[in-house]
Amino acid sequence: MRFTSEQRLDDGVVEREFTLGDIPGVLWTPPSPSAPVPLILLGHPGGLRKMYPRLAARARGSVAAGYAAATIELPGSGDRPRSPAAEEARADLRRALAAGGPVDDEIVDRLVLPLVEAAVPEWRAAMDVLLTLPEIGGPVGFAGGVISIGVRLAVVEPRISAAILFAGSFVPRAMFDEARQVTIPLQVLLQWDDEGNDRQQALDLFDAFGSKEKTLHANMGGHTGVPEFEGDAGNRFFARHLK
Amino acid sequence: MRFTSEQRLDDGVVEREFTLGDIPGVLWTPPSPSAPVPLILLGHPGGLRKMYPRLAARARGSVAAGYAAATIELPGSGDRPRSPAAEEARADLRRALAAGGPVDDEIVDRLVLPLVEAAVPEWRAAMDVLLTLPEIGGPVGFAGGVISIGVRLAVVEPRISAAILFAGSFVPRAMFDEARQVTIPLQVLLQWDDEGNDRQQALDLFDAFGSKEKTLHANMGGHTGVPEFEGDAGNRFFARHLK
Repeated sequence: MRFTSEQRLDDGVVEREFTLGDIPGVLWTPPSPSAPVPLILLGHPGGLRKMYPRLAARARGSVAAGYAAATIELPGSGDRPRSPAAEEARADLRRALAAGGPVDDEIVDRLVLPLVEAAVPEWRAAMDVLLTLPEIGGPVGFAGGVISIGVRLAVVEPRISAAILFAGSFVPRAMFDEARQVTIPLQVLLQWDDEGNDRQQALDLFDAFGSKEKTLHANMGGHTGVPEFEGDAGNRFFARHLK
Repeated sequence: MRFTSEQRLDDGVVEREFTLGDIPGVLWTPPSPSAPVPLILLGHPGGLRKMYPRLAARARGSVAAGYAAATIELPGSGDRPRSPAAEEARADLRRALAAGGPVDDEIVDRLVLPLVEAAVPEWRAAMDVLLTLPEIGGPVGFAGGVISIGVRLAVVEPRISAAILFAGSFVPRAMFDEARQVTIPLQVLLQWDDEGNDRQQALDLFDAFGSKEKTLHANMGGHTGVPEFEGDAGNRFFARHLK
């Protein structure tokens, strides 16, 4: 990992951009931590630059609550090389949505499954490196989307102790089987009026998770309208499970 | 209102039993409030004596967070006179549940609608008196069940500014129309594995509420298994809307 920039934000949070091989990422840490703090991985739909304002706001909230926060670019997003197959799946998805019809499972599979396959090892590699930093200690939480990436991480990565999953994207059928294998505490966020999201599928996925402690927080509003108070609720969830 | 007993609990909370006419109730207030505190009405399914341990625990949490809490017995419950019609409806409900079949809307109507009609004016009368006490100031929140009582109160009682509703009981069809008229901020609690509760009906009711701010918190476990952390989440919800 190579740090490429460092700045101190107005609230004292230290923001560092880094690259891990050819993967760009951002790390936010407290001004002067007296002891190593738990790490929260901030999931997102891809496109770090476009997502930056919202990611930075979430990160500041996490740091204020006593965590480090980090994120990396997704494969095929931002400045990273495009995958022709993913681009084709994305175009097929857009066509299906524009036609107003339901989206074929086959398109969702082509779009999401390769993304999960490619992204999850990268998040794990980022964890390997981030956890060697003296200011960061375990345990680790995951917060955000793409929900299928969060599900796979929760299944395969024992260092992730709890997750806040944003049920706001298409979920391949196969991920429901993986969801049953998830046992860590979960808080699942659902935007009730998210037009691009299948509400019933989100409820079914919540039902499928194998975790003994899982809470669904459904709020009004569209995809990007998650209320600010969910940041606080998320910090309290992680406080119960990461501290 | 006549206070019939007063005791100081181990955490300093002042617990007073009272009667309002022939309605018994309990009031919990902070040890020595320096200013009037908002009031939280604790809803319950009826039977103050049986419900006391859980009500007192909820009340202590509310008082610790800076509120007064109060509850009154429901019509036909505890030591209050039984209504033969309600007893018959309750027996019919038990029979329908024992037979494993769905419960006729007609039984639910007979059980719940007269209860709402009788209880809501009593809760409002209790508010009239409680709000005259020097240690209590507005605004008022409602927290708990019977959810139909909470819905009606939210519609007809302008002094109630926010409500946490427990979606754990049978809801007459007519209450869905009232739910559409609710505009105050809501937090709705749903126990995902509550066997005696219709999960889909609870989701439909959540959908029906007219409130711009409404949040569903669904947790694992049965009817009585609401996780302890929902007490904290409830206090934070009320802190946003009652303070």
